[in-house]
Amino acid sequence: MTPQTIADGIGHCFADSALLRTALTHRSFGTPNNERLEFLGDGVLDCVIAAILYARFPDLPEGDLSRLRANLVRQETLHGLAIGLGIGQTLRLGEGELKSGGAARPSILADALEAVFGAVYLDAGFGAASEVIARLYAPLLAGLKPGQFQKDAKTRLQELLQSRKKPLPRYVLLETSGAAHEQSFVVACEIDQPALRSQGCGSSRRIAEQNAAEAALKALNP
Amino acid sequence: MTPQTIADGIGHCFADSALLRTALTHRSFGTPNNERLEFLGDGVLDCVIAAILYARFPDLPEGDLSRLRANLVRQETLHGLAIGLGIGQTLRLGEGELKSGGAARPSILADALEAVFGAVYLDAGFGAASEVIARLYAPLLAGLKPGQFQKDAKTRLQELLQSRKKPLPRYVLLETSGAAHEQSFVVACEIDQPALRSQGCGSSRRIAEQNAAEAALKALNP
Repeated sequence: MTPQTIADGIGHCFADSALLRTALTHRSFGTPNNERLEFLGDGVLDCVIAAILYARFPDLPEGDLSRLRANLVRQETLHGLAIGLGIGQTLRLGEGELKSGGAARPSILADALEAVFGAVYLDAGFGAASEVIARLYAPLLAGLKPGQFQKDAKTRLQELLQSRKKPLPRYVLLETSGAAHEQSFVVACEIDQPALRSQGCGSSRRIAEQNAAEAALKALNP
Repeated sequence: MTPQTIADGIGHCFADSALLRTALTHRSFGTPNNERLEFLGDGVLDCVIAAILYARFPDLPEGDLSRLRANLVRQETLHGLAIGLGIGQTLRLGEGELKSGGAARPSILADALEAVFGAVYLDAGFGAASEVIARLYAPLLAGLKPGQFQKDAKTRLQELLQSRKKPLPRYVLLETSGAAHEQSFVVACEIDQPALRSQGCGSSRRIAEQNAAEAALKALNP
């Protein structure tokens, strides 16, 4: 796999291919690297996703749009898209980072994809970056359903308990396993009234907590 | 003052003047209001400021660019720009909000300005929004100096104490005064080694804490 594979994958032909190479260079490799492009791409992505959601959901209030956007631009989502493009196989990493599995680390892959968006913006402008992002996100956007506008599980659980004037849940990390870039977390969600203990697992503590909260919600509202 | 004053102030002639009217309508007035446009404008602003900073400071690392952007897009900055345009005098507010001084509330003015950016984006595209924002921010951008790339005072104070292996400072709210939209805060910054107590005040707790930390830094490094 070469940077050209990524250019093909996102459907953009770079006039300045050095931009793409920089976007695919992690700071552990040296300078120039993708840190500045990631800063730029992060802003481009926020804007493009906001514009897409604004146009696509004309009746959705601001809070729901914000939640949807947060979900689409967060690391897990970008990581998934980066894997689909094969970004890990084209990344330039320093030796230490390479050996410790950096090419599979979610944060490194997500940042590199944002840097690619920044590179497209510099190479051909906002319209081109907007097209690339819209194309890449099309499957995710097509899958958005009204149910996904709902608040995340932890928020819903908290609001449910507050509405019943009960104490808030506690989240306790029970277990961490796996190497640095493929860790797995198990979290317990503990509720006092009614006494309830649910568990969730996931590739990050955040995801494990959400899954534990989801399980608690199901137990409370069967 | 009319919405046209704002259009003149930002130097954009709206093809669809209803967009501007919506941007200048607070939710307390009814529907349609500027909440969705604010969501859009927030993304547009983030992107445009990122692109401007990226181009203007080719040697600045990502962390400094992020700090600069955070400073330029935060409520205090937007509030100041909104005042300069006279946005408060053209805002449509519900009666209750009007009576309680909503037309001068920093959050309401800052949100309305973001909504105006969103309205320009919808009216004439990213390029037009980018020009409006660049023009409006020009005086602030021209005033940026290398010294402003530095971390904020609380961060610098924390790092200084950590480098000396001393306990971290505490921030204590001493006083709040004024009505809801023109509150003033006084905060003490307490340090144990060496024993030191500085004060800061400001229109938000955050600003007061920064000013207290700045005073502590001066006392520690005269």
